[in-house]
Amino acid sequence: MSVYEGFSKQQLIIRKKEMEQRFSCYRKQNLKLDMSRGKPCSEQLDLSNAIFEYNGDFITEEGCDCRNYGLPDGISEMKKIFAEILGVGSENVIVGNSSSLNMMYDTFVRAYLFGINGCEPWGRLEKVRFLCPSPGYDRHFAICEQFNMDMITIPMKEDGPDMDMVEELVREDELIKGIWCIPMYSNPTGAVYSDDVVKRLAGMKTKAADFRIFWDNAYAVHHLYEENKILNILDECQKAGNADRVYMFASTAKITFAGSGVAAMASSLDNVRQIKEKISIQKICSNKINQFLHARFLKDYDGIRAHMEKHAKILRPKFEAVSDILSRNLSGLGIASWTTPRGGYFISLDVHEGCAKKVVEKAKEAGVTLTPAGATFPYGRDPNDRNIRIAPTYPPLEELKSAVEVLCICVELAVLEKILQD
Amino acid sequence: MSVYEGFSKQQLIIRKKEMEQRFSCYRKQNLKLDMSRGKPCSEQLDLSNAIFEYNGDFITEEGCDCRNYGLPDGISEMKKIFAEILGVGSENVIVGNSSSLNMMYDTFVRAYLFGINGCEPWGRLEKVRFLCPSPGYDRHFAICEQFNMDMITIPMKEDGPDMDMVEELVREDELIKGIWCIPMYSNPTGAVYSDDVVKRLAGMKTKAADFRIFWDNAYAVHHLYEENKILNILDECQKAGNADRVYMFASTAKITFAGSGVAAMASSLDNVRQIKEKISIQKICSNKINQFLHARFLKDYDGIRAHMEKHAKILRPKFEAVSDILSRNLSGLGIASWTTPRGGYFISLDVHEGCAKKVVEKAKEAGVTLTPAGATFPYGRDPNDRNIRIAPTYPPLEELKSAVEVLCICVELAVLEKILQD
Repeated sequence: MSVYEGFSKQQLIIRKKEMEQRFSCYRKQNLKLDMSRGKPCSEQLDLSNAIFEYNGDFITEEGCDCRNYGLPDGISEMKKIFAEILGVGSENVIVGNSSSLNMMYDTFVRAYLFGINGCEPWGRLEKVRFLCPSPGYDRHFAICEQFNMDMITIPMKEDGPDMDMVEELVREDELIKGIWCIPMYSNPTGAVYSDDVVKRLAGMKTKAADFRIFWDNAYAVHHLYEENKILNILDECQKAGNADRVYMFASTAKITFAGSGVAAMASSLDNVRQIKEKISIQKICSNKINQFLHARFLKDYDGIRAHMEKHAKILRPKFEAVSDILSRNLSGLGIASWTTPRGGYFISLDVHEGCAKKVVEKAKEAGVTLTPAGATFPYGRDPNDRNIRIAPTYPPLEELKSAVEVLCICVELAVLEKILQD
Repeated sequence: MSVYEGFSKQQLIIRKKEMEQRFSCYRKQNLKLDMSRGKPCSEQLDLSNAIFEYNGDFITEEGCDCRNYGLPDGISEMKKIFAEILGVGSENVIVGNSSSLNMMYDTFVRAYLFGINGCEPWGRLEKVRFLCPSPGYDRHFAICEQFNMDMITIPMKEDGPDMDMVEELVREDELIKGIWCIPMYSNPTGAVYSDDVVKRLAGMKTKAADFRIFWDNAYAVHHLYEENKILNILDECQKAGNADRVYMFASTAKITFAGSGVAAMASSLDNVRQIKEKISIQKICSNKINQFLHARFLKDYDGIRAHMEKHAKILRPKFEAVSDILSRNLSGLGIASWTTPRGGYFISLDVHEGCAKKVVEKAKEAGVTLTPAGATFPYGRDPNDRNIRIAPTYPPLEELKSAVEVLCICVELAVLEKILQD
């Protein structure tokens, strides 16, 4: 559908005036609404307060006192839980502190300083290139930028990254060392990787022996509706003879507390052995009391499933409100499209080319903070200036509704200004 | 005094027999005693259990909900506490997760990958050399070893490292990039740095513009008797025109929970700004709930002082028992000397040259685990094979006493075997 199909120029001018009026109404309300970051709301956080309702000892099933040094790779209770979340064995898991991002970062550090599996450390290469399915997660790209990698944008499809492009690139270029993946409810599109994509990632030929998939399974159990499953990539890598190809990551940031949960990574036994060796020099251990309290609270996979249903109950109305308001205001105009994810933390909104920055600016004027336009692409530059990430979880429902109403007006205004100017 | 002065060879042979008998008595007891690591004992850990007796909210004085993302450099309540411990401003402090070792390690990572203050990243240099006052902390040296630095052993004196040697080395060699310091109750000798040493470290001319002092103030408030103070090195660096020279570290590992406390670093405002910039890409934030619970429990410097007095009450009898038993058994024989620290976690025992390894081996045979001989020197090699680190904090008092009795016998046996063989 083309932009404002069926509208005459006169009608567009009138519509623009109407939007300007509505915009100025909202402006006068001095709103202060924030849809910028994927943060859980207070109600969600309250679900986990009982973690600290505990007066017993801190002795693990193996007899380790969590209040003292030891177990650099974490307590077994927490390993088991992440093993279930990620579909791997406990022995494949390393449990850390609260931040999985930190574990990803440190994984890059080790690759840069010490190299992977006897390969040249990435820090000694002229250049390292990294595949960045986009729109994607800005904090992934920020790590690449800090390490001065060349980021290669890979179009993100409904079932994962464009695998034809990925396969072609990695086959030829030894300096391409890895790819970012958020396989379940990808940030921000909500895409779930298909079995075919997982298999191709696991099995593809790579020129670099130390090519690695950074499998950020941040939303593994964050379903809004039915339970979704993705193919187990560690198994697939093993089957394909590329057992060491994948580093998996997960955390309870959006299960319990954002920033104060428990994070973990998982990989082949060989990788785990090498990583533990390095980690044991970096620190004596991670915060095991936090691990212990979490394991006690979450119990097991069934415990997590029940807990996540409570999250979904809070989040479903928010996601649905966004979807409803976008549909009501923008459907049929040919100026925007958006995703309706079945889980995760984001909705991805694509607006008419060249308008995303303008939309975000206008929203800001009206007191609605959005993730900066472009943030979902490498270097913060969306080549088509189209994509806007909506984070509906944090604001209370009523505020969220106002914010999305404002957003819709801003989309129309930005597009109308552009096409009437052209 | 020379070894076994005044003893005839016959007397030495008899003494050796006697020791062998006593040794075999202990062996039969199947002891399992551990004096290897500087771990707090259960009684000490119990002092902080009340940290988790809390049912209120997690809102900081600045209104931040610790259960959610934010504040990558920590909450202000905890910054203030570390500012007091380290004698700096709150704005000089970055609060992290639980491990100060991890913060030191990450500081090396940043120097290696990104360089300091615009200088060449250490990872791009042919070599990096590091000054290691010894006997020192094995985990410091292990970091240097992992990064493949050249470690230069600096003799540790009663008031700090041999500064004549330090000054001469750093003046000439641009590849010497830093020095490890544990200024208060140094691990393992218990030495407290004199004002003169602090001033010379702060003021000395260094060939490398990016020379850094890693000031691991792990035992800043860990007094066994009177309160000791060291000169504030950040002030001294500032006065000397070397404001950016020092990175300070501290943690509550041995105030609250080992491995699950709170760690922090402090430095000049310029350094702090640069570090924060990097950290904000590495993670969204550290575990603020743990910071919040700690700040609430410790309150302020007076709170810490009162709390540390309780630790001292538990530890004083242990340190004094070790000292008494060593004196009773080994004084006047000319075969060993040891420190009597006024705080910290260790006692340093020097035995007759070439005997330390043998002593540790023998102790092991009798069921007493000590830190491996050599561990207190770079590369785990004590050039004189003399130094043994005693960690008296962890074992219960009665076990500790047995362990030290065994140790004394092992010292005598090792020395007697050596000199009777010679």
